[in-house]
Amino acid sequence: VSNAPTLHEKLNRPSQLVKLAGAHDVMGARLAAAAGFEGVWASSLEIATSHGVPDSNLLTWRQLHAVAAEIARSVAAPVVADCQTGFGGPEIVREVALAYEGAGIAAICLEDGADPPRNSLLPGQQAVAPCGEFAKKVAAAASVRKRLLVLARVQSLVAGHSQQVAQARAHAYVAAGADAIVIHSRSPDPDQVIEFIAAWDRDTPLVLIPTTYHSLTVAQMLATGKVGMVIYANHGLRAAIAGMKRVFCQILDEGTSHGVESWIAGLPEAFALQSPRPA
Amino acid sequence: VSNAPTLHEKLNRPSQLVKLAGAHDVMGARLAAAAGFEGVWASSLEIATSHGVPDSNLLTWRQLHAVAAEIARSVAAPVVADCQTGFGGPEIVREVALAYEGAGIAAICLEDGADPPRNSLLPGQQAVAPCGEFAKKVAAAASVRKRLLVLARVQSLVAGHSQQVAQARAHAYVAAGADAIVIHSRSPDPDQVIEFIAAWDRDTPLVLIPTTYHSLTVAQMLATGKVGMVIYANHGLRAAIAGMKRVFCQILDEGTSHGVESWIAGLPEAFALQSPRPA
Amino acid sequence: VSNAPTLHEKLNRPSQLVKLAGAHDVMGARLAAAAGFEGVWASSLEIATSHGVPDSNLLTWRQLHAVAAEIARSVAAPVVADCQTGFGGPEIVREVALAYEGAGIAAICLEDGADPPRNSLLPGQQAVAPCGEFAKKVAAAASVRKRLLVLARVQSLVAGHSQQVAQARAHAYVAAGADAIVIHSRSPDPDQVIEFIAAWDRDTPLVLIPTTYHSLTVAQMLATGKVGMVIYANHGLRAAIAGMKRVFCQILDEGTSHGVESWIAGLPEAFALQSPRPA
Amino acid sequence: VSNAPTLHEKLNRPSQLVKLAGAHDVMGARLAAAAGFEGVWASSLEIATSHGVPDSNLLTWRQLHAVAAEIARSVAAPVVADCQTGFGGPEIVREVALAYEGAGIAAICLEDGADPPRNSLLPGQQAVAPCGEFAKKVAAAASVRKRLLVLARVQSLVAGHSQQVAQARAHAYVAAGADAIVIHSRSPDPDQVIEFIAAWDRDTPLVLIPTTYHSLTVAQMLATGKVGMVIYANHGLRAAIAGMKRVFCQILDEGTSHGVESWIAGLPEAFALQSPRPA
Repeated sequence: VSNAPTLHEKLNRPSQLVKLAGAHDVMGARLAAAAGFEGVWASSLEIATSHGVPDSNLLTWRQLHAVAAEIARSVAAPVVADCQTGFGGPEIVREVALAYEGAGIAAICLEDGADPPRNSLLPGQQAVAPCGEFAKKVAAAASVRKRLLVLARVQSLVAGHSQQVAQARAHAYVAAGADAIVIHSRSPDPDQVIEFIAAWDRDTPLVLIPTTYHSLTVAQMLATGKVGMVIYANHGLRAAIAGMKRVFCQILDEGTSHGVESWIAGLPEAFALQSPRPA
Repeated sequence: VSNAPTLHEKLNRPSQLVKLAGAHDVMGARLAAAAGFEGVWASSLEIATSHGVPDSNLLTWRQLHAVAAEIARSVAAPVVADCQTGFGGPEIVREVALAYEGAGIAAICLEDGADPPRNSLLPGQQAVAPCGEFAKKVAAAASVRKRLLVLARVQSLVAGHSQQVAQARAHAYVAAGADAIVIHSRSPDPDQVIEFIAAWDRDTPLVLIPTTYHSLTVAQMLATGKVGMVIYANHGLRAAIAGMKRVFCQILDEGTSHGVESWIAGLPEAFALQSPRPA
Repeated sequence: VSNAPTLHEKLNRPSQLVKLAGAHDVMGARLAAAAGFEGVWASSLEIATSHGVPDSNLLTWRQLHAVAAEIARSVAAPVVADCQTGFGGPEIVREVALAYEGAGIAAICLEDGADPPRNSLLPGQQAVAPCGEFAKKVAAAASVRKRLLVLARVQSLVAGHSQQVAQARAHAYVAAGADAIVIHSRSPDPDQVIEFIAAWDRDTPLVLIPTTYHSLTVAQMLATGKVGMVIYANHGLRAAIAGMKRVFCQILDEGTSHGVESWIAGLPEAFALQSPRPA
Repeated sequence: VSNAPTLHEKLNRPSQLVKLAGAHDVMGARLAAAAGFEGVWASSLEIATSHGVPDSNLLTWRQLHAVAAEIARSVAAPVVADCQTGFGGPEIVREVALAYEGAGIAAICLEDGADPPRNSLLPGQQAVAPCGEFAKKVAAAASVRKRLLVLARVQSLVAGHSQQVAQARAHAYVAAGADAIVIHSRSPDPDQVIEFIAAWDRDTPLVLIPTTYHSLTVAQMLATGKVGMVIYANHGLRAAIAGMKRVFCQILDEGTSHGVESWIAGLPEAFALQSPRPA
């Protein structure tokens, strides 16, 4: 059963923030939920990296959908699926929205970057899709969903465009049916995002993904009264990489796994993550 | 292209050991190879845990095969696939062997535990299949493979049976066509395995998975002159769990991801793992 | 949304029969529904044959499930999924039942043949599983389902056992939670099945698959007052084979497709089967 | 093992024609091969229709690839995969070509229609991609393949453009690395295609898909000396539809399957299509 209504209410609470963590498999999603995160971000970056390919449509949407659906079946917390630029035009977005809703996913996030998608955090210039073209995708998703939330992600600031352009795009996407606006930034400091929030004059909640501007705290986001959700989008993946690098090197260096036993998870912990039912 | 012939040669070198690390996705396999492991163990425990289900046939063999095949396409190092009890009788094992060989996997490992498989490291009694019945599965795999190696895993010691029984089973599996014998143990010290190795009088190389008896070193295995491969089967998974638990808790505790940046992998490291081609 | 409640009611109507046709893809299911069949049998024989493999667990249950789920999403009529012997023991059957119910499938059918399953209509002796062992699978499915119906298929007559044995097994499966009993026969005449029906003294409806005893009519089944469903399990497949054989030979014989145009479906008919939504 | 080299030779024989039939599953492919077709066209129209969706990228390329790969594993005849407009830009086409070659498929066919693809035979105006943009896709596929053939399909005539434009595009695609040119037409008579063939002055063989202009015979194509392959792209599907419609209606009309037994394939014929190995 989809958790979308609850997520909708939570997103619109004035005094709280829904905190999501990125995951690329059920295990990561369960660890995030167990730690206290209120939702899971089915991150395209995480999923693509775990499969060893760029997050630029090399995995098809059905592959990303399969991972998000499996997570939604396996954790009680709502799942927000990173659907990048929608995997095609409005006809495809419509199928995508139906398929994600059908799998019990709470929300999808569509971004207005140019096709094929290119990770926002890769160095180099980012391009965006025409505003009206992207608004049609948001509208396509909104027109077929029942409880699924549609998040629209504005890439204007990442692409080097002005705050005015970013605001105008956000307004257009709200008009097209977006339930929340993800205002994205890859600036190392939060000023860019803070300026956007200050100017935001709609009731629609904002969502932040503070990967690069990590000095911004949850308390500061809450204080704005406009941010409904924060997504720590790829830290689970990066912690897993750090852990695996360390364990592999240490075993080879020491010629035994004796030394790593002190800091890696015990087997009972691994088995505890194997429940076939949601927890 | 399968790396089986090379793996066969390596397995039979008198003075060296092939060191494998377990992985549950391409990312983990690439990290293992980059660290210096000479091969990848497509671990059923790891893959099942990442999907949040017990490694007791809840994932079908086609799901496990898909992961192993993706790893084999994405890393140059040979992949040894954990095929548990073979997913059925000899007719199924035949299809399994053909499908793994067809995907460029270097070796499959079949174990003689009872069906449905139950992780050796779970507390409680372990049961085994009749020796002759399992030997037929080994023979079925051996009869259809061209270059694929067939590893036969003896669960006798895990099930509490005698060294004599374990030796007899290993002999039967060699006679059935096994290219190597995995002698398994869940004893916390290596004596059980050492006793087996001492009594081993065939040319067929032995394989160890020293999860519980982790005090045994690579140097000690090498000194026996009979061990051709060692598999560190689940440490990558357990390090990933430890890393993800830590990162999720720290972000929530600190109300920001600022603090975790110092120890998790950087984004460039994640992007470097996204090459669509083997490395 | 599952159609199970409706199917349950229909199964138990005294004066009508639910007529199902076998299908191996969405196209066949839509053609069956359009012709007037009230439900679709996701036939393992049909699906396996379309994939070119025996229906003996060479396709995994997730592959069969994927086909049935796709059909359930694409036709409004209820889908009854042929789950053969349950793909494993009670633990697996539990997962299978949950997965089929989760996909909106109305009913699953489990049969009490020995493992691995062997098509009933193949020449040669058929074996059955112990009654108590199979009853546990029925109970496992019944214990986790909410609206999903569980059909239990008695293979006793196919295996050459007596009517008494068949009745006793059917009683045991009803006690274990079966919503209907499929009494199977591969006799060329309907006497075997008619004798079973005459002796049946429970309220639980019976289901027939009159592949070999095709002289039995719907009117005759209805007249018994005990048959709730009839499944024409593989005629779609066999008609497709006949059609494809003919068209391929005729094109090659005539050196053009001109002649076949008069009897094959027109392209508009093919396009009409492409609606992305149920009809 | 890919059959590409053989197919390449066959395509370039002056005095013969490779005859392909469309298929949407292994069963259809085996029936085509058994009838005498020398290759299989893994038709997007057929596969999409069997899944009940438009052939406009609603199935992802990995789904189409899975069907083609399964066919290639199951029939000895070479498989030519209909890859529509390439499922994305040159980066995606590169992955697509590698994945098809890796699965033992003999050739892929890319068409220069606009995105998203729209079936050529649907009523209404067809649009094409810019010539240079499509040539880059052909070059991308040609740059990574080893033995895989790359067929480039010219949609100019379908889109209502001139013969000159069609020739110029075909020349550009040959220059980009195409191994054959599929000149497509949806005219009910063959004049359009015949005019193109007459003007063709390159050594690269031509390929025809005479769905609408079905009066053109194999003998006439051969007489041109320039046509290397003919594809009967969707007749298997349409014959299957006709057969299934008839069988479903007849069973319901007659209230028994007795009457259909005389014309549908027998069960032994179905079982004969279940061999797990190529034939």
